[in-house]
Amino acid sequence: MELSFLSSLVVENASKVVLVVLDGLGDLPGPEGKTALEAAATPNLDRLAEEGVCGFHDPVAPGITPGSGPAHIALFGYDPLRFTIGRGVLDTAGTAFEFAAGDLAARINFATIGPDGRIRDRRAGRIADAEGLRVTERLARAIRDIDGVRVLFQHVKEYRAAAVFRGAELEAGLKDSDPQKEGLPPLPVEPAAAEPSPRALRAARLANALIERARTVLADEPAANFVMLRGFDLYVPLPNFCELYRWRAAAVAAYPMYKGVARLAGMRVVEEGQSTLEQEVALVERELPRTDFLFLHVKKTDSAGEDGNFAAKVKVIEEFDRLVPRLVALRPEVLCVTGDHSTPCAMRSHSFHPVPLLIRGQNVRRDAARAFHESACLGGGLGRIRASELMALLLAHAGRLAKFGA
Amino acid sequence: MELSFLSSLVVENASKVVLVVLDGLGDLPGPEGKTALEAAATPNLDRLAEEGVCGFHDPVAPGITPGSGPAHIALFGYDPLRFTIGRGVLDTAGTAFEFAAGDLAARINFATIGPDGRIRDRRAGRIADAEGLRVTERLARAIRDIDGVRVLFQHVKEYRAAAVFRGAELEAGLKDSDPQKEGLPPLPVEPAAAEPSPRALRAARLANALIERARTVLADEPAANFVMLRGFDLYVPLPNFCELYRWRAAAVAAYPMYKGVARLAGMRVVEEGQSTLEQEVALVERELPRTDFLFLHVKKTDSAGEDGNFAAKVKVIEEFDRLVPRLVALRPEVLCVTGDHSTPCAMRSHSFHPVPLLIRGQNVRRDAARAFHESACLGGGLGRIRASELMALLLAHAGRLAKFGA
Repeated sequence: MELSFLSSLVVENASKVVLVVLDGLGDLPGPEGKTALEAAATPNLDRLAEEGVCGFHDPVAPGITPGSGPAHIALFGYDPLRFTIGRGVLDTAGTAFEFAAGDLAARINFATIGPDGRIRDRRAGRIADAEGLRVTERLARAIRDIDGVRVLFQHVKEYRAAAVFRGAELEAGLKDSDPQKEGLPPLPVEPAAAEPSPRALRAARLANALIERARTVLADEPAANFVMLRGFDLYVPLPNFCELYRWRAAAVAAYPMYKGVARLAGMRVVEEGQSTLEQEVALVERELPRTDFLFLHVKKTDSAGEDGNFAAKVKVIEEFDRLVPRLVALRPEVLCVTGDHSTPCAMRSHSFHPVPLLIRGQNVRRDAARAFHESACLGGGLGRIRASELMALLLAHAGRLAKFGA
Repeated sequence: MELSFLSSLVVENASKVVLVVLDGLGDLPGPEGKTALEAAATPNLDRLAEEGVCGFHDPVAPGITPGSGPAHIALFGYDPLRFTIGRGVLDTAGTAFEFAAGDLAARINFATIGPDGRIRDRRAGRIADAEGLRVTERLARAIRDIDGVRVLFQHVKEYRAAAVFRGAELEAGLKDSDPQKEGLPPLPVEPAAAEPSPRALRAARLANALIERARTVLADEPAANFVMLRGFDLYVPLPNFCELYRWRAAAVAAYPMYKGVARLAGMRVVEEGQSTLEQEVALVERELPRTDFLFLHVKKTDSAGEDGNFAAKVKVIEEFDRLVPRLVALRPEVLCVTGDHSTPCAMRSHSFHPVPLLIRGQNVRRDAARAFHESACLGGGLGRIRASELMALLLAHAGRLAKFGA
């Protein structure tokens, strides 16, 4: 379904929609044959399932294991194969950096290079945030353009930063300069294609020139005396989420990448030093009165899955469940709980398995699901949808979609 | 999902995938309200269902009854609406004939024409294979080109053969010359379009010239003294299955058409005089060590359905079930059992009904299905997918797909 079609049906009303994404929620049966969601005691989620309608979504398509970027892009209603956002843009979008259409972004790793021209430390001794920020600002003061092209720098975290080329028509198909192993010299940035376009060739020249300039600027640094560039990525703006759906949208997330993807979509990102789940829910309580759509991202279900820590995943789910009544008390017209993808503890990685999905709100056609977990969702009324189809369902349950045709 | 996208995610590993297609497997309830799959005693398939994940596929789309060509094209991961292969190419692909891109193929029916110019026998007295081969070779020796365009002949079976025009830019939208009824004169080959392209007009002229030349060559034949052309079809090569998925693929099938579609996809076709199901399974045992993906085609479920012979369909399913332990003993990482379409005994024809599907292998999210048949698959974890989505699932369960995006 084209976004323009969906957008053409949108009507405004006073309803509120809360979308909770428990990152990596989907699971495979672990100890005692249960998934984390099945093993967790979740009386409040189960009540939502009983009052609502359940099912599954495939983040991208059956069989496809998504990264967090494509998975969220899809949940927000965009075709994740059409709107691809690489790590270079995604990481940087998590900061306050403002991208412009056509920006070519690269991730910077500050590194230590020896007088022999070999990489001694690929992370510059894992310098702290303050130190990373200082050397990034040093680069920003010294290098404002290369070969007439504007260059912007943004510190991300510790030894990580980003470089952005602006205002030139460049291509992103470039190889990383990181040799991946210490004791080796850095690689030149080269176009990935066998027969590169002039735009890719120019981008490679700019990147190599940047590396050389940075080396001169940082020559007297004890640790971060070199930059490696990787993850070259062209910024293509997403159609604005607030304009598409004619509402105010806000995001509450503890991790920069998820703030980033919400910001790229045009949501207002609630910037606080929040870290606990309880603090996130408190922000939802504070922000919902001044927004129509609220995206709440919970990270630690995924972290536990990546660690293969079944007990921890159960614990995060139970912790969230105890907070569910506070979300229900806000009386949003639509409350949706799902994940962005599965991260089975047994696999310790993202996976392709469909993700449990629950929608509770006005005009739901209730189904037989009496609990919220993989087995119960199998008989759910939503069946198995694509993540990118979710937005239409949320809008519909919020009464925000007009009839199509006469 | 574009094939190029899926292909871009493929990684190689040592896993093995076996895809069993029980032709026309899906059914409607027959005697005692059960489908053939429900009535059959299938303890081994049921165990696979219990250990695996079940569901349905629509071969092309809900409501669409597919021929064997599109159904297999879709199971192999191609969009059956984009990659259309007509009967002319499909029949001939089942022989050893090697197509080249741009070939225009037509099916030949040898016929008997009277001195009055009317068709006396549309099948030339159903001449046997040896006789069909002899007259085909006679044509091949006498007619090597027409109007500067190369012509190739291939015997298929009994009174059926194929003619292929090579090296000219022709179009396939041509009407058959078969009048469909004996006692009528043959029809001229004409473009199907009201305003035909020059390429279609030229193809029609070539086809009519071929018919005339063949009439002269075969004038002294007692039975096969005429050819009728039908099923004009342009050969468009499929993207190579082995290159797309970066593995070795082989096909075991008893019937030429299924060998043909596998060959068109670029699979290695195991050429043996196999005929029984047991012999086919023995070939799987022999070939799996030297292949990564093995397609096993079982024809007789469909034949029984086409005959409306419920008992025979049950018997074939039970015969296959007894061989399942031999497939399991090969320990493929992924074992998938399904059909290419439904052939309900009650309808005696292909139908549009969704086809039962089962995947057993590593990282399956087991579901509640404890048997393999239409009713049990309804609650299955795979839900209802398109056949063309199956390959991504098989690759995913085989650990052969990398994560998409960051």
